[in-house]
Amino acid sequence: MKISILGTGNMGAGLAGALAAAGHEVALGARDPAKAAALATKIGAGAVGGGIAAAAALSDVIVLALPFGAMAETLSEAGDLTGKVLIDISNPISADFRDLVIGHTTSAAEEVQKQAPQARVVKAFNTVFAQVLPQEARTGAAVQVFVASDDAEAKATVAALATALGFAPVDAGPLTNSRFLEPVGAMNIHFGYFLGRGPVVAPAWVQV
Amino acid sequence: MKISILGTGNMGAGLAGALAAAGHEVALGARDPAKAAALATKIGAGAVGGGIAAAAALSDVIVLALPFGAMAETLSEAGDLTGKVLIDISNPISADFRDLVIGHTTSAAEEVQKQAPQARVVKAFNTVFAQVLPQEARTGAAVQVFVASDDAEAKATVAALATALGFAPVDAGPLTNSRFLEPVGAMNIHFGYFLGRGPVVAPAWVQV
Repeated sequence: MKISILGTGNMGAGLAGALAAAGHEVALGARDPAKAAALATKIGAGAVGGGIAAAAALSDVIVLALPFGAMAETLSEAGDLTGKVLIDISNPISADFRDLVIGHTTSAAEEVQKQAPQARVVKAFNTVFAQVLPQEARTGAAVQVFVASDDAEAKATVAALATALGFAPVDAGPLTNSRFLEPVGAMNIHFGYFLGRGPVVAPAWVQV
Repeated sequence: MKISILGTGNMGAGLAGALAAAGHEVALGARDPAKAAALATKIGAGAVGGGIAAAAALSDVIVLALPFGAMAETLSEAGDLTGKVLIDISNPISADFRDLVIGHTTSAAEEVQKQAPQARVVKAFNTVFAQVLPQEARTGAAVQVFVASDDAEAKATVAALATALGFAPVDAGPLTNSRFLEPVGAMNIHFGYFLGRGPVVAPAWVQV
């Protein structure tokens, strides 16, 4: 599958590397096209890099690997997103990583959907630290990836991607459940960075 | 330990039964003292039941096993709570169970603390379904109980109670993290009731 990734931070680079390793064609996009191109070269496996709009135009599946604060501007630069699957992996965290800047009556994913109403927004991967994106960084039971969307086909596409990366996708319901999944991500950040567990912890829903 | 439980619903009855089975002295309190007394008789093991204030006065550790909507009135009836450990197990869910009625900038636990500023509020057990409170209802790895509080001693008390009931207590940080734990509880309700998993599912944080 051809997948575009907007953003070259830890999550963008990690997903790009893992997706390329799983045999997908990766296109990276960044405000600074040279940065995206350099990361593409580093990843190899036919990955390409360029500007936001150029990368977005290449694929029907786009990962928004951006801080929530950069989302609106990037979406406005991304061109026509009609029918595209937009995977929002963000947690809308505060500068000190301790709080969420939006929540309860909305979520980052819902804000993305508002700004790109013709796109098929899927919340996923927001509870997975960049450190555990490479498959070789994980041992034991498959790490769960919670997938929320109002579009069943888009949800299935993202679930298949998660499976290809060695994760266990979990249907988390409609996109509005991002109001719960983003606090789950925030709690994960607390466990990883403020409660001594390290960024090698992840939430799972288990049968009792 | 002597523990008072305010509320005779599924969670109150389940915790009362489990705590009594673990050898604790249980006092039940309800708006209708006869209801609390009847439940105490059913539980046996020396459990007693009565009104809200009477039950609250008996113990230094009080479980608020109440719907969030009943919290304020019950607290106002509970008498002097100075120094007492108040365990808030609630999820402030809407009438249809699908949403939270407060969140993001506050939480049920923080609202309890505001109303009982001299008490030592602990968030715990809000991600555990009543159905899995009896130890015999659980198999496999110990179900995690997330414990958040600003009072380290109160947190340790509640962690010890969770351990006595066969759960694995997990330090979830300060009371404000209830802003994340309550959405975790809401997500748990979605998995249990709306996403086909049944009320026998629970969140866990695992090392990857």
